[in-house]
This record gives sequence, structure tokens and C-alpha cells, in this order.
Amino acid sequence: MHEIVDLRSDTVSRPTPAMREAMAQAEVGDDVFDDDPTVHQLQQLAAQITGKEAALFMPSGTMSNTVAICVHTQPGDEILLDTEAHSMLYEVGAPARIAHVLTRTFPSKEGVPCLETIERSLHVASLHSPRTALVILENTHNRAGGYPIPLEVHQRIYALCQAQHVRVHIDGARIFNASIATNTPVAQFAACADSLTFCLSKGLGCPIGSVLCGSYEFIQQAKRVRKMLGGGMRQVGILAAAGIYALKNHIERLAEDHRRARQLAQNIADAQGILVESPNPPTNMVYFQTQAPAEAFVERLQTDYRVLCHATGPHRIRLVTHLDVDDDDVAHAAQAICAVAKALY
Amino acid sequence: MHEIVDLRSDTVSRPTPAMREAMAQAEVGDDVFDDDPTVHQLQQLAAQITGKEAALFMPSGTMSNTVAICVHTQPGDEILLDTEAHSMLYEVGAPARIAHVLTRTFPSKEGVPCLETIERSLHVASLHSPRTALVILENTHNRAGGYPIPLEVHQRIYALCQAQHVRVHIDGARIFNASIATNTPVAQFAACADSLTFCLSKGLGCPIGSVLCGSYEFIQQAKRVRKMLGGGMRQVGILAAAGIYALKNHIERLAEDHRRARQLAQNIADAQGILVESPNPPTNMVYFQTQAPAEAFVERLQTDYRVLCHATGPHRIRLVTHLDVDDDDVAHAAQAICAVAKALY
Amino acid sequence: MHEIVDLRSDTVSRPTPAMREAMAQAEVGDDVFDDDPTVHQLQQLAAQITGKEAALFMPSGTMSNTVAICVHTQPGDEILLDTEAHSMLYEVGAPARIAHVLTRTFPSKEGVPCLETIERSLHVASLHSPRTALVILENTHNRAGGYPIPLEVHQRIYALCQAQHVRVHIDGARIFNASIATNTPVAQFAACADSLTFCLSKGLGCPIGSVLCGSYEFIQQAKRVRKMLGGGMRQVGILAAAGIYALKNHIERLAEDHRRARQLAQNIADAQGILVESPNPPTNMVYFQTQAPAEAFVERLQTDYRVLCHATGPHRIRLVTHLDVDDDDVAHAAQAICAVAKALY
Amino acid sequence: MHEIVDLRSDTVSRPTPAMREAMAQAEVGDDVFDDDPTVHQLQQLAAQITGKEAALFMPSGTMSNTVAICVHTQPGDEILLDTEAHSMLYEVGAPARIAHVLTRTFPSKEGVPCLETIERSLHVASLHSPRTALVILENTHNRAGGYPIPLEVHQRIYALCQAQHVRVHIDGARIFNASIATNTPVAQFAACADSLTFCLSKGLGCPIGSVLCGSYEFIQQAKRVRKMLGGGMRQVGILAAAGIYALKNHIERLAEDHRRARQLAQNIADAQGILVESPNPPTNMVYFQTQAPAEAFVERLQTDYRVLCHATGPHRIRLVTHLDVDDDDVAHAAQAICAVAKALY
Repeated sequence: MHEIVDLRSDTVSRPTPAMREAMAQAEVGDDVFDDDPTVHQLQQLAAQITGKEAALFMPSGTMSNTVAICVHTQPGDEILLDTEAHSMLYEVGAPARIAHVLTRTFPSKEGVPCLETIERSLHVASLHSPRTALVILENTHNRAGGYPIPLEVHQRIYALCQAQHVRVHIDGARIFNASIATNTPVAQFAACADSLTFCLSKGLGCPIGSVLCGSYEFIQQAKRVRKMLGGGMRQVGILAAAGIYALKNHIERLAEDHRRARQLAQNIADAQGILVESPNPPTNMVYFQTQAPAEAFVERLQTDYRVLCHATGPHRIRLVTHLDVDDDDVAHAAQAICAVAKALY
Repeated sequence: MHEIVDLRSDTVSRPTPAMREAMAQAEVGDDVFDDDPTVHQLQQLAAQITGKEAALFMPSGTMSNTVAICVHTQPGDEILLDTEAHSMLYEVGAPARIAHVLTRTFPSKEGVPCLETIERSLHVASLHSPRTALVILENTHNRAGGYPIPLEVHQRIYALCQAQHVRVHIDGARIFNASIATNTPVAQFAACADSLTFCLSKGLGCPIGSVLCGSYEFIQQAKRVRKMLGGGMRQVGILAAAGIYALKNHIERLAEDHRRARQLAQNIADAQGILVESPNPPTNMVYFQTQAPAEAFVERLQTDYRVLCHATGPHRIRLVTHLDVDDDDVAHAAQAICAVAKALY
Repeated sequence: MHEIVDLRSDTVSRPTPAMREAMAQAEVGDDVFDDDPTVHQLQQLAAQITGKEAALFMPSGTMSNTVAICVHTQPGDEILLDTEAHSMLYEVGAPARIAHVLTRTFPSKEGVPCLETIERSLHVASLHSPRTALVILENTHNRAGGYPIPLEVHQRIYALCQAQHVRVHIDGARIFNASIATNTPVAQFAACADSLTFCLSKGLGCPIGSVLCGSYEFIQQAKRVRKMLGGGMRQVGILAAAGIYALKNHIERLAEDHRRARQLAQNIADAQGILVESPNPPTNMVYFQTQAPAEAFVERLQTDYRVLCHATGPHRIRLVTHLDVDDDDVAHAAQAICAVAKALY
Repeated sequence: MHEIVDLRSDTVSRPTPAMREAMAQAEVGDDVFDDDPTVHQLQQLAAQITGKEAALFMPSGTMSNTVAICVHTQPGDEILLDTEAHSMLYEVGAPARIAHVLTRTFPSKEGVPCLETIERSLHVASLHSPRTALVILENTHNRAGGYPIPLEVHQRIYALCQAQHVRVHIDGARIFNASIATNTPVAQFAACADSLTFCLSKGLGCPIGSVLCGSYEFIQQAKRVRKMLGGGMRQVGILAAAGIYALKNHIERLAEDHRRARQLAQNIADAQGILVESPNPPTNMVYFQTQAPAEAFVERLQTDYRVLCHATGPHRIRLVTHLDVDDDDVAHAAQAICAVAKALY
């Protein structure tokens, strides 16, 4: 029987032997006391890659986003974000419960928001009204299908926001996928934002961690909010070592994940009873719709073929390629999906 | 010179002599100790009119909405409301700052939301996701042009929500205007919601106050949240007496305000350089767009004609009829607006 | 049978005919638009009396305190206040739920805190620690027995706080009682604080309202927080008129309430089975301890003698004199208490 | 020159080679999907040691405490904790900013609170008052001098609280130190609480992590709050492996840290110009007071002797022994402290 092919998320990848070795050898110190040299090294590398003044290791992308919101806003301010943004859907209400900001949601098409809607939504404070303090853009946009937001869109939104003294945060959990897919250096995206976070534990293949990047002053404040949230940790160099390894070795290879996602999409495009949303997916995600209930589809795939994936709606399924998925896995998964689609048709 | 005609809002109306007399004679007690007989009488009357089990006097509509949100939700829950809802725009971020709820915003047309959008937005809690706890509907919808939401829309949304265990709150600050305009008893609207608030200090002409209506249990909890917000007051019978008077004498007369708004809209419809949004406005509001900057328009009207109104956007102006505006005032205001429009053309 | 003597609180007093007349005649406007002349007059009078730059009408003392905390602090800051402070015990957790501040509590003796404890508790922010942002002092101190805090104590605490950039707020719900009892102008107390609130609806006899006083800038910010809490109201002049009347006519007479409290304390001092905490009470409150359960004592007083009072603990009862309690009422209440004490002994 | 002796905290210890090896070999999975076998193993071991139904890995003790508060309380509730508790002093205001609870603080002596104060402070909710929802006890008590709270004290407080339906959380960051020092199994302490957290990254010597223990239901809720705070991480088995190693190998050896702390205290007891607070320190901490400014003392120790420690007050210094401090280090540190004390006398 084929070994398990886990397409649930790029978060499931396990550290490679070389990455484990880097972690095992890491020099460490107490990072709450700012004493960990490997953390410093990772943070400098991240700042350099994003072109920001400073960076801060975070235990998760969720914490990174929450910290950014807390630093950029005051309670009662308003933030603008996509109706399908990670911060709306998958952070357990943290923007409201921790940062206490109004969330004004805008729709988007293939992950790209309507600029006019954003422009019209920005407003200043009055005796009665909250001010718009922050716009969050998620690149790549997971729920939209892993679509990258083009640099030009970022540039125009940042210009709008700067004119109104509104800050911009990029939830770049998968910004390296966007970078590879659009051939745009991450620093160019980051130049269109006051802060940017990227995840080490998604396509880059690390076990744990995200990095939040911004100005010196922003990072100083972020450090205190991170402490408040319980994200101040000790010998973090163990994890930072994996991050350094990934930034040096796992960025270019994302192109393979993208190629495999396209392969997967093509291989299942003609299956009966399913509809592939984008036959030529832009990054490492394939979304398809099922006639059959998605939950049943997912279960059948797992039970009969050891292929794991996620139902992201009653009739919608997501597949994600990553470090632990090779060409053979893709072929097996495609075959399995076609078979299940046929069986449930 | 014509006396001031104040069309800024229906909140500016002053208590009539008869209402003042009712207040002066009111029997009172300490309402924090639940000892005020006039407050009891108002609350019973409000419950009766709305067909709800119980009611609670509130110092303002803003507090009424915030209390309703606090009772219906837990911090971190999600609520759905119009992008132009009062709670989004004019409550200083209270839903986020006090109730700590995510606000998912939906667009509407003439105050009526798209049912499919609402249906699609309702979701249950998971390890990652907040649950949808509450939908807020504002009837009449101020920013949309004072449009009433038809009963049928309420009925369908309430059915959707009940099926998903999601609560509905009606911000009925001007529900009596909706009632008169659509010839629908307020109780029929209230039957489509778990709670409803209406304002005494808008079209009904009282100096201060709103009333929040709902089940016994809801009102018990609301009382404690009101106390927490600082809305527990003492000899409130003074204000409740005005409310009772208004509920007995000022509801039917809203038809006059509506007639005057239509009159006003018609009288300015042909003026140069302005565009009346609805030539036949449904309730007591007339919105028009100006070629000239709205602020300049407003100032000129005030300085030259003693007609007061609000700029609600860079080129948008709102006129509101109420108890203190008679036919002569409307004629004067229309003439003034036409004159200013011409002058600024 | 003697008419009801209500000693539960000085909040129960009803407006006098003259006060009602002032309210009935009040000139009013829409205070949310800052258009109410009577509110302006009250606020100017309050500012003048307290020697502060500005003042703001509030629907309650609870809201006044919460607004002050919100303006003086940032979420996550620490405030210092008495273990028995109103804000700890009777504001439904508002400092935590609305202002999100840590509350560090200190004990006091006859309402006077230990200065060394306060001094030792003040601290600055660090990466790990919240900063002390505010000290709240309640004068007179209700739970301590209506004790006034001497001016000198205020002066020393204010000096400590100013040296550490920590703000001071006086919860002066009954500051006029303190003023009369200690023969200290209210402005001298207010000079020892960044903000002070006093209640119109306690000893001063108004139906509704408190006034918050501070610098121009403080009051500007307070206005927005008041709006957020739902305390922005419309024709508030009705209530402000009562406040003006009270400030002109009801301050000096507090000495009578104090005299009657002393009379009451003396008249019940020798009753069996009760212990008067202070035989010579400093202001308008008499606390006594009962051998019998306080609830039973209170019920018996009400049922048999129509004397109302509050159990403030399992064996502790509070009596409060006010505008609606005359010498005859005091004599009747004292007799009744002695009788009940004997009966329950 | 002697190598650095780092007595700032037991958090500074670095993972041993054997612990590193365990981490390098750890089997891992995606813990957000509950797929990490090593995390499961750690959590089962923690539950077994503490005698609780379930356990949850946390990135820090701060997050553990905050999660516990969030699960045990509702916003606006009151919690009781020591004036010197970690949650008051070193969690950046998280109890207020995230959990929104009133913090009522009580004093203690050698870490042991006065039971009567606690008993008197417990109260139920009313229209006006918050309810007491939780008591937090820190064992060992860092700021008090590393004192353990005796089991009997826990038992009596838990009995009080259970009678009033108030929950108890033990901040057992150093509960294993308390266990060793008092010869009490950790499970006996845990039996006196609804939840207990202990730190892996303090005396136990792990690089990162704490474990929160409680009932199944508590841990289910805790998992969601952890996600909200950004504490949901992926291949956590890397860190959990260190935790398992520590629980199996590093508990008994805490006795050595305690012995070395006593040695240190004795060796500096007679130095001039300093006062050792407890000549026979109960666990792994030595606090002493300095005539000279503590900051100068600390700096001199570092510069001249490479001995690191913390000033915890203007004239107070803390020394902590741990896994990376041996007998020779203790001897060197003691000598250095005596020398600096003499030099600054």
C-alpha cells in the first residue's frame, strides 16, 4: 500500500535530517533576556531578506498577526481586512478579543481586493466614529486558492493608506510562495507595508515559528506585546536554527511545490463529479468542488488510499503540496481522487 | 428673518409643553433599586407595544445596542452587521472595545441586505474559528436614506438565524418610522428578533432615552451590563414620563414628518447642482448630493438662511424632519436649499 | 403609622418642588451636538467650584469613574485603589471589563490608606511589567463609614504620584460631604488630583447625574469615551437644571444630614445586641453591627416600622441621612432600631 | 578567569547533550491537528505526575497562567492573587488586557497568604458586584524568596474556595522545587487546585515550554484559548521530547540546586554591607539586600567577576541556582559577592 500522502496543509511537513542537525548544533541563550545568538542571526537574516529594519521570532503566524494589530492600533480603532482573511476565520476572534478593534471586511476576487472599496472605507476619527488604523492583506491568499496579490496592487493600496496615515500589515504566511510565483523579491512586497510576517512552519518546512518584520520601533513594541501574549520563550535558538536553514535552503524549492500543484490540478481536472477551481493553480494549493459531500470524500480518500486532505466547505476540498510530497505522491493522490470521485459520482 | 430650521437630526427636537408637564408631575423612585413606578410603567408599555416579555430604559441608543451585543455574545464571537450600520460608524468602536466581538460587515441596497450573503456568512465555532453569534439589522436604515427594511426580509433572516442558533437584534432607533411607513405594527418586526431597541429621543421627541426589549432573561442580564456601563440611574421617572407621553401621543404623527420629507425632496428635486437621492423618500430623511463641497453648502445654508443640516460625506447632505419642523419650515428650507444650490453652481 | 423613612442611601431622595420647577423651565438643546445651554452652565459652575479647567455631565458616578480610568490609562496598565473602593465593589468589574487595567488593591484605615504602601506600589513599565498609571481615592469613603480623607493625605499622595508621573483620580461621589465635614473647599481636594468626579444624585438631591472635572484636554477625551459607553444624551438641560439648583442650594445643608447622622448614632448607641461602629459619625452615614443576622434585622425594620436600610454584610447595616430625612424621621428610625435590636436580642 | 556564572534565573540553563539528543530523535507531527505523538506522550506523563485528567503543552508559563485565567473566568469577574504574584508583576498586564478580570491582591508572609483575608474576600455576583471566580497561588513563591507554600495551606484554601464555588489555579512554575523541598508529591499539591501549570524551562532545564494540567473539559477549553493567543504550534514534539527527558531525569536533582543555594547563602551571610534575607533558603533562590545600589552591585559583579545576577529592587538582588551551576561556580560566586560587597561598603 502507498505510504500516507498528507495534503492537508504545508504545515504538516517534518524537519529534514539536515534541518534537525542544524537544530541539534544550535548555539542558544535565554531569548527573554535577548541572549540567544541564533535567534539574533535569524532575525537579522529575516530583516535583510524583507528589507525591514528589524525582525522578531514568533511561535506562530496567529501570534504574529495579533501582535502586529496590537502595535498598529488602539482599542476601538477599525481595521480593514478580507472577508476570508486568516485573521477573520482562523484566529479564534483574536483581533476582537485581544486587540479590541472593529473589523470592517471587504470582498476580493482571486485574493485581490477592490481598490475603490478600500479607498471609500478609510476614515478618520470623530467624536462618534472610530478611525481606520490598519489594512491587512494576506499574500498568498489561502481561501481564494493560494493566489498571490500582485506587487502593483500592494503599491496602490499602500499609497492610499499612507496618504490617510493608515498602516498596512501583510500577513505573508506564504509570501515566499507569492515571491516565487510572481518572481518578485519579498523585499518589494515588504516595501509596501509597515509590517510583514512570514511563516517558517509552512512551505519553508520548519517545525515551529513565524517572523514578524518592521521598523526598530515597531519591533520594540512588538516584543512587549509578544511577552504579554505568552510568546516570550527561552532557548529559542533551537527553533531559530531551523529557520535559518530554511531561509538558506528551502525558498527556491517552492517552485517544485507549485509545479506539483499544477500537475495535481491537471491530473484531476477531468474526473467526474468534481470541479477544479483553478486548472492552473498559481502556487501550492489546489481547491476543487465536489458533488458528493466533501466530508465523505475526504474520509474515503483517507480510508481507501491514505491520502489526507481538508474539507474547507460542505462541497469544497483543499490540497496542498509541500516539502514532504514528491512526484510519486502527487501521482498517487491524483489517481486516488479520480477513483473516489468516480465512486461517489 | 425666518427662525432657525434645524434639519440636522430628529434628535434635536425639544420637549413640548405637554411633555414637560408630564415630566414635572412624574412620580419617581430610585431605579437602581427598581423603585421607580414611572419607569416600570414605561417599560411595561414598551414591552406591550413590541410584544416582548420585558423592556429596560436606556440613556441612549448606543448603550442599548452595546448592551444587546454584550448579552447575546461572548468575547471573541462574530457578529454580522451592515457596513453602514450605526454600530459600525457612530458608536466609537464600542462593539470591539466593550463587547470584543469580530464584526463581519455586509453591504445592503436601500437598507436591505443580500440574504445569500448573510446565509453564507453564518458559521459555527471550531478550534480555530469564532462562531457567528448575532446579526444586527438597522430599521429604518439611516445611512441608506431612512429606508425601512420590509417585514418579509426580517422574517427570512430570522428564519435563517434561528436555524443556526444565531441571535438577531434590531437596532430600531427609528422603528416607529418604519412601522408608519410600511403600515406594519412594531410587534411584527420585534417578532423577528431576539431583542429590539427603539429611541425615545429621535422622532418620538423625548429629551433622553431608548428602550431595549426582549425576553425576561435577556432583560435581567441587560440590567447588569447597563450597570457596568454606567447606565444605572436614580429618579429616572422624570425621563420615563416623557417616554410614556411620546408613546401615547407622538407615534401617529410621524406620518407628518414623512409627508414633509417628501415635500422637501420634491421642492428641491429640480435645483441646479444637486441630486436628490430619493425623490420620494420613504420616511423622514432626505439625502442629496452636491456638486459643491458639502461643508460649504451647509455653512452657507446656516449663515444665510438659518437652515441647519449635516454633511454626511464630502458631497452628501442629510435633511431630517421632526416634531419641531412644520410646513412653513419645510417651505423655507426648500427655498433656501435651492438658492444656495444656485449660488454655488 | 409613621410614613416610610428611607435610610438605604442618599440616592433615594426625590427632587424638591423648587428643583422640579427648575427642570421644567430649563432651556435645552442637543448635548451630543454640544448645543445645550443649561448643560454648559452646569459644567462651567462645576469647573469653577472644583477649580478645574473643564467639566462634563455624566449619567452616573460609575460612568464617571470608568471614563476617568479609560482616559488616564492604557489597557494593561495598573491602577491602585482601595480594597473597598466603589470601583472594586460596585461597578460590575468595569475597570477590568472596559478599561482593561490591573487593579492593585490597598487597605485603609477609616478610609485613609497607608502612604508607604502606596509609595512602594508605584512602578514603571518594563518588558515584563505593567506601569502604575493611576491612583484612585474615594472621598468620603463609603465602606469605611463615610469617613473623609483629610486634605493633607491627598496632598502627600499627589506629591508621590506626580513625582512618578502617575495620575490621581478622586472618586468624590460625596466630596461635598467631605468638604462640609472637614471645612475644606472642594477645590482644595481637586487641586490634589488630575480628575475628580462628584455625584449630583446623592447628598445633593438631584434625580440623575454626576460631573467629571479635569483639564480641557482630559475632558475632550472624556467626551469621546462617554460617547463610546453610551453616555452621550440629547436634551440633557432638563437634568443639568437640577444640578445647578443643587449646587446653589443643597451644599451647605449637608451639615444637617451630618448632624442627623450623629443624632441617629447616639440614639441607638446603647441598644442591646448592636454595635455602632462610630458613635460620632463624620458625615451622613451610620454603620452598625448586629448580633442577629443583618437581613432579618432589615426586614423586621421595614415590616414593623417602615424604616428602610441596607445590610452591607452578614452582620453589618448602613443608615444614610439625606434631603428627605428630617429630625422626626431620625427619631422614629432610632426608636425602631432600638426596638428591633431588643426584639432580636 | 573563571567562566561566566549565570545566577540571573533558572531559565538560563542550556539543554544538556542528552536532552539535545532526545530532541534530535523526536518523532513529530502537526500538533495543531493533534498529530504529534511526542507531545501526546509528554502530556500523558504530565497528567500522570500531577494526577490530573489531562495536560497541554504551552510555549510559556505566562501563556499557561493567562489561559487558565481565561478558562476559569468570565470578563468582569474578580480573581484573588498575591500582591507579588508573577501574574501581577511579570505578565505585562495580561490578566487585565486579555482576560479582563479585576485583580484583588492580598499580601503574604514567606509566600503564605493570610487565610482570613482570602476568606473575607470571596464574594458572589450581584447586580452591582463582580463575583470572585478564581484564586491563584504561586508555589514556590519567587518574590517572597522561593518559599514553598505548605500543602496544608493549599488544602485549607481549596476547601474555602470549593465551598464558595471559586476555582483555584496553582502557578507551579517551580512546583517541583516545592515538591522536593517539602517532600510532597506534586500530585498532592495539584489535588488542591482546579488547574496547575509547571515550567519545563526553569529548574527542569528545557529550552522552551510549560505544561498546563486540569480536567478533560478544562484542557479542551484551554486548547482553544491557546490557539487564540497564538500558542498553537506545529511539530512541537521537538520541544516535548526535551520535556519528557527532563521529567524523567531532572526532578530529583533539584535537591542539588537547593543545597547549592544554601551553600551560597551561608558563604555570603557574613559579608559586609549586605543582608541575606534567608540564611537557610528553602529552594533554589537567594535574595539579599545591599547597602549599595543594587544596579551598581550587579554591574560590578559582572564586569569584575563574570557573575551574573538580577537586581529585583533598588537594593535587592536575587541569585538562582540551576542545572548549569556547579559547586565550583557557587564558590566563585560567593567569593565574588563578598569581594564586591566589601568594595562597595
